[in-house]
Formats: sequence, structure tokens, C-alpha cells
Amino acid sequence: MIQADIKEKLQQIVGPENYDDSKAGRLVYSYDASPQFQSMPDAVVAPRNKEEVQKIVKICNKHRIPIVPRGSGSNLCAGTCPIEGGIVLLFKHMNKILEIDEENLTVTVQPGVITLDMIKAVEEKGLFYPPDPSSMKISTIGGNINENSGGLRGLKYGVTRDYVLALEAVLANGEIIRTGGKLAKDVAGYDLTRLLVGSEGTLAILTEATLKLVPMPETKKTMLALYQDIEACAQTVSNIIASRIIPATLEFLDQPTLQAVEAFAHIGLPTNVKAVLLIEQDGPEEVVERDIEKMAEICRAEKAVDVQVAKSPEHAEALMTARRTALSALARLKPTTILEDATVPRSEIAKMVVAINGIAEKYGLNIGTFGHAGDGNLHPTCLADIRDKDEMERVEKAFAEIFQKAIELGGTITGEHGVGVAKAPYLEWKLGHTGIEVMKAIKNALDPNHILNPGKVFAKETNRVVMMK
Amino acid sequence: MIQADIKEKLQQIVGPENYDDSKAGRLVYSYDASPQFQSMPDAVVAPRNKEEVQKIVKICNKHRIPIVPRGSGSNLCAGTCPIEGGIVLLFKHMNKILEIDEENLTVTVQPGVITLDMIKAVEEKGLFYPPDPSSMKISTIGGNINENSGGLRGLKYGVTRDYVLALEAVLANGEIIRTGGKLAKDVAGYDLTRLLVGSEGTLAILTEATLKLVPMPETKKTMLALYQDIEACAQTVSNIIASRIIPATLEFLDQPTLQAVEAFAHIGLPTNVKAVLLIEQDGPEEVVERDIEKMAEICRAEKAVDVQVAKSPEHAEALMTARRTALSALARLKPTTILEDATVPRSEIAKMVVAINGIAEKYGLNIGTFGHAGDGNLHPTCLADIRDKDEMERVEKAFAEIFQKAIELGGTITGEHGVGVAKAPYLEWKLGHTGIEVMKAIKNALDPNHILNPGKVFAKETNRVVMMK
Repeated sequence: MIQADIKEKLQQIVGPENYDDSKAGRLVYSYDASPQFQSMPDAVVAPRNKEEVQKIVKICNKHRIPIVPRGSGSNLCAGTCPIEGGIVLLFKHMNKILEIDEENLTVTVQPGVITLDMIKAVEEKGLFYPPDPSSMKISTIGGNINENSGGLRGLKYGVTRDYVLALEAVLANGEIIRTGGKLAKDVAGYDLTRLLVGSEGTLAILTEATLKLVPMPETKKTMLALYQDIEACAQTVSNIIASRIIPATLEFLDQPTLQAVEAFAHIGLPTNVKAVLLIEQDGPEEVVERDIEKMAEICRAEKAVDVQVAKSPEHAEALMTARRTALSALARLKPTTILEDATVPRSEIAKMVVAINGIAEKYGLNIGTFGHAGDGNLHPTCLADIRDKDEMERVEKAFAEIFQKAIELGGTITGEHGVGVAKAPYLEWKLGHTGIEVMKAIKNALDPNHILNPGKVFAKETNRVVMMK
Repeated sequence: MIQADIKEKLQQIVGPENYDDSKAGRLVYSYDASPQFQSMPDAVVAPRNKEEVQKIVKICNKHRIPIVPRGSGSNLCAGTCPIEGGIVLLFKHMNKILEIDEENLTVTVQPGVITLDMIKAVEEKGLFYPPDPSSMKISTIGGNINENSGGLRGLKYGVTRDYVLALEAVLANGEIIRTGGKLAKDVAGYDLTRLLVGSEGTLAILTEATLKLVPMPETKKTMLALYQDIEACAQTVSNIIASRIIPATLEFLDQPTLQAVEAFAHIGLPTNVKAVLLIEQDGPEEVVERDIEKMAEICRAEKAVDVQVAKSPEHAEALMTARRTALSALARLKPTTILEDATVPRSEIAKMVVAINGIAEKYGLNIGTFGHAGDGNLHPTCLADIRDKDEMERVEKAFAEIFQKAIELGGTITGEHGVGVAKAPYLEWKLGHTGIEVMKAIKNALDPNHILNPGKVFAKETNRVVMMK
């Protein structure tokens, strides 16, 4: 509960129409795209500019009120679930594209801009913003930066972090910092820009960002390679990279995912094979042609039963869009969809896929796997029913084993979804006690009162079950 | 002075042959490549492995002895000058390439590896490590990471930061952290990898690094564009990028630099023009041909008096090598060479070059300018004599004005050389008081006793002279 006098102050700052503590209003923001987590905020506050953000933060810091910054809430780690109450800080008004700078190849935005809107705006100028999280139709740039979102083009182009040049942010004490600039090189001080990227709103509240753009690739081409042998499919991924080709996209979909996506999207995906690689290359035409041909050869050499090149740009676009709907497609099948993103070095993909299937069998679970194979970022997805307690317990154990296996193979517990609440109990497995202590020291230094997205990233307790065996 | 009992302990750890507190030994490490700074360490200690580093750090932390980690000392910010005494920690023994992983396209090294040795080793496997600081013949990878070194290929390929995937480091308390992995995507916790990159040895001591490699470009081509009009030359840089071409290298050299380099390298550089752009493109042959042709056109349209394409790979290599000798060439002319790296958005290059020339004239100084024009990273270089007190005062004032101008234009005080001692008094100009406070909070959290490279990055006093006018 926000005290009456504080509520009044907050309403004065943002206007009464931007302060909502009705039950219905709060309920809407009590959860995000992550299943299994729900918690009511005390109020939902929508500032209109950074000065309002500053004022709100100062009040919250004084009165120890948690602040949960939120774009569209499309994250999959319960990163915007207000588990300690407080206010959800909604960026719906701060959604302007402030500048597209064609000389310096940058775009400057407010955090509430929808990712795809920004991508379309820069593409109109012949420029390209590569990070493309599957949620980009609804996600916001602020959310992407806070989660350091990846996407389908990560293999060749990197992730959100690689495109953030400058940030403006409000610290827990209400002061504003500006990091970086429209600069390809800047080593003036610690890399605060990248410290904030991926910090999940626990270190500061973003109010503006300048992102790097690159020239639009001249052309692109898409193909599918079909497999009856999952290991051969995974091996192909390693072989393509080892042959010194870096495709723009190199996605893996197993049969359950293919069937679900086809039933959802109806675009003629093969459903009678065990796995498919969806491959895209972009760049100058000659290079794209040559790479696609070479990759087709590599696929065939590794026992692909068929290789199909998309017939038209529209067909290619339909394939990529279908891939982006994988989560939605799978989510239709059962009441609860738990999508994870254990990530391994790409040389270990085959082992990881085999391990996931073994773990699913061991626990009697329905786990489909798809994901960004080229960068080792897999999305094992469990279809379950949250009302079935026994099943949910098995799901938890299975995912703990999957995380453990990923770490064993030199991987990580999350490639692009973030830690949030969902993965916090496993973070120490990856970073060790010392790594967590370093992070805590930084958190305490910047947010001593723990008002910024509390309960995220840092677990009350590390999961010891599997690691202790 | 290191106490006798501590000296004995340190000698036991590294062996007496790796502990040197002779006057001659200490003198060698009392300075680095930065002029104007010298200070004697108490001892020079060369550990052979990370366990020895840990033990040394624990002793130093207990007894508050400064540790200055040092590779080859080729930095230009006095980043390895032991201004508070203590020990210089020398990485000459920890210079192994541990692994080149051709499947995951990574190389794992100890910090003392010479940059060019590593580059040659990976190139033998058809792989490419793009960051190429001009000092790469002698610099170490550990130094490159600590300074977040740039280089000639930064425009297209980014800087050291963009290639560091994983680090192992010893914290001030002697504990080891491991960050990242052979992973294209990893969002498990704060980005400690990039917090350490560019932290100049003030947050932890690196003991191992895994770096990202990319496939070797198929071919490359080099050209020179000659100008009698410096502004037209600078404008060409913006025009090339605005035309959506990102060359691998886009270097600017003014007449004084050209003359000095030609006198030093004798490779037939034009010396009768006001400025030259040295341009390289790499990639598939068709693309390189097309880009070089298009860039030649752009140069001619912007009043280049001549455009010369390198006749052979050897000639191209000679041109790039000559550019890398610019500092050495200029340094021969006068007793003291002060090379700076004020950096601006590339759209502001023309304004910055004009401003530098104006400032040089105002203070009656000899300032030549060369640098990585494509990423706005200029190296105004002042030839002076440290014994001429009046001149040195003018040099300081001139550079303060150059930094101020760079910041006015949206730039930074250092693009790739680091802050160290040399630029610490100016850091607040770029980051503001709040930015410095955030950095101090992080420093205090990770190194509460300030034993790690003390006196670097954080100034005792900010230079107020110019900013207050």
C-alpha cells in the first residue's frame, strides 16, 4: 500500500490519469510473459518524461518503495513481475524516436518505443538494426536493453549490447547519468553503458538510448534443411561455422515444434522430419548465393534428407515469421508453456540436444526444442499444466538438470532471456559464489536501499538440489 | 620500500629470479610509453601462473601495497606508471596461447601474449582477430583488454571489447572470478566481462582471456586519396559512411604526419599534399572491388586531387605499416611527442580538424594530426621539448582546449588510449560528477583498499581551467 500522502505526491508528478491503483489496473501488471509468477503492485505509474522519472525515483528511494520498470512485459524470466510490490513504472508515454542520424548511423529513442516500430523507421532510411528478439512486434527497446535481448540474427550480428552506444539513466538517488556517445570508440572511464545493458532494471532506470545502426544488407536468401537424424542436424551447425561461413540466421526446430508451428501458421513447413535448420544469409548478392550453395552442400554431406531454398522474399519472410511464432504456437497446446534458454558453445549443440531429450524422457515430460543453434542458444520448451503439481515438480527438476548440463558443457543458464526471478536460484551455478559477491557489491554500491526491481537477479536462496548430487 | 619479511614471502612465491628490487631493474619499469610521467616502483615481480598472482595479491591487499599490472607498457596514458610505488606485476612468463578453438572460433590466451604473435597464430588457421592497435608488434593482449584498445580496423570491426568473450581475473581480495564463456549469448548476471575490459587494472588482475575470432576476409584492397583541402578530406569521411559503405580502415594523415612518416619509412607517400586518406576494404573480392571503386568516386567528387590504388598486397601492407609507424616517425623530430586521442562523432571530424589547427596556431605549437577518421578517433600530436617549461604549459592548455572542443562536439577525451594518469584530470568533463561518483562506488566496492593500480582513472583533482571559462 502506498501511503496517502505519497500517492498524492506521485499523482501531482504524473497527473492523476497516469497513476492507477485500482484493483483491475494493478492486476494487469501483476504478471508478465513468464508463467508461474504473479504478484500485485501497489500502483502503476506512467511518467511522461525523465524529470518525472527523477522525481518518482527520489520519492521511492526516500520511502523505500520498490520500482519495477516495465516496457511491454514480454520478458520470459519474470523480470517485470512486482514480487515485492511497490510501483510498476510504465513507459507507455516515453515512446518517441527522437532522432535517426544518417551521418553517424545512429538512432536515439526513448525506452518505450516498440522494437519493430524502430526497426521499420530505420529501414525506411536504408539502415538496419539487427537485434530481433522474437517478441519484437510488442517488446520495447528499453526492455530489450534491460534484458540484453538476443534474437535470430545474433550469430552474425550480435545482441542488443553490441548496438547500445549511449544511455541516459536515472540512478536510485534520482541523479541522472549519461554514458557513451555517438562514438565508435570511447574509453573514458568504466564501461557503464554495458554495465547497465542487461542489468534488468536493478541498477538504474533508463530514460534514453542511442543505438548503432549498420547499412541495410543488399539482399538475403533463406533455406530449410530437413533431417531425420537430430545429431546430424546439430553437427551441421558446427560444420557450417567451421567452414568459415557465418550466416545471418541458423535456427533449429525439432519435430514437435515444427508440428506446432505448422498447425499455427500454415505455411507448408515439413512436419514428417525429426528436425529442420532454418538458414538465412544476407549481404551482397554474389556472397549470399555462394554461401547458400556452400551451406546446402554441407547440409547434404551431413545427411540432410532435403534442402529447400525459399522461392521468394515473401516465402522467406513467412518462414522467419513462422519461426518467431514458435512460442505462441507451442503455447496453444497445453495450459502452461515453460520456455528456457540454456546456452552452450556451438560445438556442444549436438550433445545438448541429446541431453535435453534424455532428461525429458527421464522425467516423463513433453519437451520440444527450438532455438538459435548458430549461437548455441537453445530453447527447450516444456508443455505442461500448472495445476498438475507432480508434473510441475518434475519440470523444475528437469530444467535444473538442463541448466547443469549446459554449464558442464561450458554454457550458461540463460543466453538471452535474463535471470529475473525465474533463473535467480541458478545464477550461482554459473558465476560461482565470488561472481555473485561481485555483483552484490555493485548492486549495493549503486542502489543501497534496494528499491530498483528488488527480488530480481539475486536469489534469496541458491538451488542446491542438483549441483550437490 | 617493501618490508624485508614481505619481500621474502614474495620471493618464495615467484622465486628470487622473478623478484627484482635493484635500482636498475626498478628504473626500467618506472615509466611506460607515455611521456611526462615517471615514478619508481618498489619492486618488479613476475608471477608464473594465476596461483602466484593470487598469493601476491593477497599479501599486497593485507599490507596495502599498490599493484601495477603491466604487459609491455606501450600504453599512452601513463596507465602502467607506478605513481604510488608498490610492485609492478609483470606478465612476461604468462604469455602462452592456450587454445585455438576452430569449431567455436575462439582463442584462449594468458595476458602476456604479444598481440601480433596471437594474430599470426590465428591467421595461420584462416581466422581473424580484428583489433589492431598500432603498438600490436609489442603490446600484450592483457594490456589491450585493460585499455580496451582500438586500432585501424575499429570502424568496421569494433574494438577489443567486442572480442572478449570470457575472462579469468584475480580480485583485490585474492579470489578468482570467471566471467562469460565461449558463448555468443550470455545474460547470466551483470556484464562483468565488459566491466573489466577497459578498467585499466583498477578492478581486478586478468589472468586469462577467451577472445572471439571471425573468418579471415577473403581479400583486401588499399587506396590513398590525396587532398589539398583538409575540410574536403574530412568531409569525404562522412560521405563514405553516409553512402552506406563501411571500409575496414579509413585513416587520415595530415601533411606534417605524411612528411614525418615518409622520411622514416621511405615508401613513396605523397608529401606535397595537405592531407591523405588511407582506405582499406576487405571481404569477398567482388564486394571489395565495388566498394573501392565507389569510394574512389566519392573521394574525387569531394575534390581529391588524386586517388591511388595500391599496386600489390605488399604495397598495401607497406602503406598500413607506415601508418602504424606514425608515432615513431613523429617522435624522431623533437625531444617530446605528446599524442592524444580526442574522439568525436564522425560527422564532426571536419570541425574537429579545423579546431585543432586553430588551437595549435593560438598557442604557437606544432601539432600534426592523424588518426582513425572513420570512427572519429583523431590523434593530434604535439612535437615539443619537455625542457621548455613555457612550451609545455602551452601544450597543456592547448590539449585542454582540444578535449573541451571534442566534448562540445559530442565526443570524448579518449577514444582508445585510456584515462590512466594522463587524462584523469579531464574525465569529469566527459562523465560529469555523477558519472565519476558511480565509478568510484564500483571501485570502492571491488577494491576497498585501493591497491589495484592506484592513482589511475580517478584524479586527485579535476582540471577546472578551461571548463570554467
